[in-house]
Amino acid sequence: MHLGYDTKMIAYKYAQFKNDVVNLASLCESFHPDTLVAVARGGMTLAHALSMALDIRNLQTIRCESYDGKEQRSSLTIKGGCDFSLSKRVLIVDDIVDSGQTLHALLDILRTQYPEILFQSVSIFTKLTALIQPDISLYEATDWIDFFWERDFLK
Amino acid sequence: MHLGYDTKMIAYKYAQFKNDVVNLASLCESFHPDTLVAVARGGMTLAHALSMALDIRNLQTIRCESYDGKEQRSSLTIKGGCDFSLSKRVLIVDDIVDSGQTLHALLDILRTQYPEILFQSVSIFTKLTALIQPDISLYEATDWIDFFWERDFLK
Repeated sequence: MHLGYDTKMIAYKYAQFKNDVVNLASLCESFHPDTLVAVARGGMTLAHALSMALDIRNLQTIRCESYDGKEQRSSLTIKGGCDFSLSKRVLIVDDIVDSGQTLHALLDILRTQYPEILFQSVSIFTKLTALIQPDISLYEATDWIDFFWERDFLK
Repeated sequence: MHLGYDTKMIAYKYAQFKNDVVNLASLCESFHPDTLVAVARGGMTLAHALSMALDIRNLQTIRCESYDGKEQRSSLTIKGGCDFSLSKRVLIVDDIVDSGQTLHALLDILRTQYPEILFQSVSIFTKLTALIQPDISLYEATDWIDFFWERDFLK
């Protein structure tokens, strides 16, 4: 993971994403995932891109809702059921691991519910202070990332 | 819908997509969707973009598998359960409606399963010969569309 991406407010553009997806896909190959799960909403464009780069057709979405407060981790709720009946190696995909609470709780829940499945996780950006580091990530996030999907489609 | 997009092999680029999402979002507003469902894999980047443009957090994915042949429509299987417990107006999102068989069968299944929910559909491209036309679409597809998510992430 590259340390210290170098601005205070990073405008993360499609051209950069295009290169990053190719690099992330290379890093993901050794896990040999058969299933990708996008963490909605932020992970969806990345998961779609990785599914094309890795030629993985089993592409699903999960939504996590959590309550603010001290009990955030334990009160996480997963919305939308995944179908892992054909899955053995599942890669969880998100744009950024920030506090890491969602990813930590999500992996806890999924590993308990599906003990026979291997789970790994990937993100573009990760904060070093996150509760959990994803298995694969490209950049440390030190500041606010303004992803193109948060900016390009506003009127 | 604009008729006759004008090349034989359309390289559909991100810059075009960016404009199209804003236009599609305007067209989708009158339906007042509370939920977006991406048809995986092709509809995922568009659904993510529309969810940001329309500020809709309830964003889900559905996968459809069908067998080739005369019985294609009736043999469609939906993979990955949706959670419509909080949904009243659901917009199905796909990149292109080609034969229209998947969309037709999917809407049949969903409207039967959730008779109290209103469903509409949106795509960027539609073939005029499709079995069903989506409620909202920007362009007629007369030729092969090479979407950027099918091209930009290959090594």
